[in-house]
Amino acid sequence: MTDRASIAPIPPGALDLAGEAVRRRRRLESELLARVAAGGYEEIIPPTFEYAEVFVRAAGSGVAAHLIRFLDLDGQLLALRYDFTASVARLAATKLADQPTPLRVSYTGPIFRQDPGREGRRPREILQVGAELLGDASVAADVEILKLALDLMRRAAPPEFQLNVGHAGALAPALDALDPGERATVRDLIGRKDAAGLAARTRGTLRTLPFVIGRREALDRAAELAPEAEAAVARLRAIDAALSAEERRHVVYDFGEVRGLDYYTGMHFEIFAAGVGTAVGAGGRYDDLMARFGRALPAVGVALDLNALADQAP
Amino acid sequence: MTDRASIAPIPPGALDLAGEAVRRRRRLESELLARVAAGGYEEIIPPTFEYAEVFVRAAGSGVAAHLIRFLDLDGQLLALRYDFTASVARLAATKLADQPTPLRVSYTGPIFRQDPGREGRRPREILQVGAELLGDASVAADVEILKLALDLMRRAAPPEFQLNVGHAGALAPALDALDPGERATVRDLIGRKDAAGLAARTRGTLRTLPFVIGRREALDRAAELAPEAEAAVARLRAIDAALSAEERRHVVYDFGEVRGLDYYTGMHFEIFAAGVGTAVGAGGRYDDLMARFGRALPAVGVALDLNALADQAP
Repeated sequence: MTDRASIAPIPPGALDLAGEAVRRRRRLESELLARVAAGGYEEIIPPTFEYAEVFVRAAGSGVAAHLIRFLDLDGQLLALRYDFTASVARLAATKLADQPTPLRVSYTGPIFRQDPGREGRRPREILQVGAELLGDASVAADVEILKLALDLMRRAAPPEFQLNVGHAGALAPALDALDPGERATVRDLIGRKDAAGLAARTRGTLRTLPFVIGRREALDRAAELAPEAEAAVARLRAIDAALSAEERRHVVYDFGEVRGLDYYTGMHFEIFAAGVGTAVGAGGRYDDLMARFGRALPAVGVALDLNALADQAP
Repeated sequence: MTDRASIAPIPPGALDLAGEAVRRRRRLESELLARVAAGGYEEIIPPTFEYAEVFVRAAGSGVAAHLIRFLDLDGQLLALRYDFTASVARLAATKLADQPTPLRVSYTGPIFRQDPGREGRRPREILQVGAELLGDASVAADVEILKLALDLMRRAAPPEFQLNVGHAGALAPALDALDPGERATVRDLIGRKDAAGLAARTRGTLRTLPFVIGRREALDRAAELAPEAEAAVARLRAIDAALSAEERRHVVYDFGEVRGLDYYTGMHFEIFAAGVGTAVGAGGRYDDLMARFGRALPAVGVALDLNALADQAP
């Protein structure tokens, strides 16, 4: 019946699903969207392709190489949606400009990312569900998003999951004191948890704080080791105080996370699930981004990877 | 609050929705997908971009100019999803190859089309919901899809709607008797309902059949005017006999529809709603297509335009 020579191949990393894989994703998507809607988050449907510049403006020049780009009929450079944040920011400044803050916005759909050096080995189309809370700089907003992330993960029902929570302001004072070239090198060492490298190049906080990771007691240790991180630690303490014992069970404080540092301005987190090698979600506060799109607002949000979660759900 | 100079523009024809426009689409999409699932149709999630050749193989060389195309990292030509049919065909030959026929497949998501001559005046991202019934060549399969289309439209609840139903086999004998160049010209005249042009260039059936449009009595007229269209008319009669009086109220037989003739091999239809200038949906039988993708199966399906329907729903 099947003529294999005629079967159309798909591009490397393309999403192509049928049967149970689709049912899992739709069930999970409905469940997550229902929770997000119950929290007052209003869904948007942004374009699948935008001007490439928009994604660079949102996520920094480092993303340019990871965009799937093409020329429009008029010669302008377009890209497939790299993330939803730029679209959220634009809509907040246009169609949602008349709405009072705080604004709660949600979304579901594919994002597109490629890694030219590792072509074919990674998915290029990733299904995301996310929520952003705009216009509220308070601890309560951080807590709302963190609790939302925890609740979404509970509904996604992986056997075990953990949020690694950090704060962009913890390492910032020590890193800002370095000159830019050295700062990049040190960040790289921190990212690789290279204790020997850090011992050779730095002193004080940068040798110790990146290795502080744990439950609430990690906040005490961080405060002792890095007095200049006091404000960041105080914020995380306030967030922690608002969590239930059950929520706290899934939270680990991690002062060595540097990946989101160009983007996040406060609390940030990555979500890990047992049996999944990469993060299944991420989020945090990014108070500097919205102004670049026409409406200066503090912002905090979370996005989950529906593909990774659906495949490990029981 | 809003700095208009910073607002990121979107490419012409891009979809960008918030608020009630999103809620209408999601409500309608859920309702349509629930009906489709109740009919036993299994959802697929195909790639947003594929090799451009795939869409040309499915829909003909005429679509090449309407694809949104770009080069992959390896130099291969990709295109954003022009329609779901190619993906349905590929999945039927791969992930669904072990499933017995008839196969019922459904989908929801954006398709991407552009018209280089009319850039900026038309949407380039269109949300579709559709269903395909594969492996059943019977009248019952035509009836199933036609009733499904009618039921989906009832749920979409436009104030009034109509299915214009034709049959690819009705004009085919007369058109096939012409040489290819002349055939294209005549098809064009039929498409424009140019009676004078057709009178000048053709005789017999081609002068009369294209103007036969109406309720069941149109089937009698077509049979009288074009004895060679007997098989097509008999098929439409059998389909009509299976419809309820309420369903028949929304059905008009139209022997002048030539737009889908390269694609459809039997019954085909377009769906119109009061107050919407273009078709809000289309469907029909396409028994020749699946074989080009590795698994020869008769097929009949329907797709609705969620954007057009959501905006006119009450």
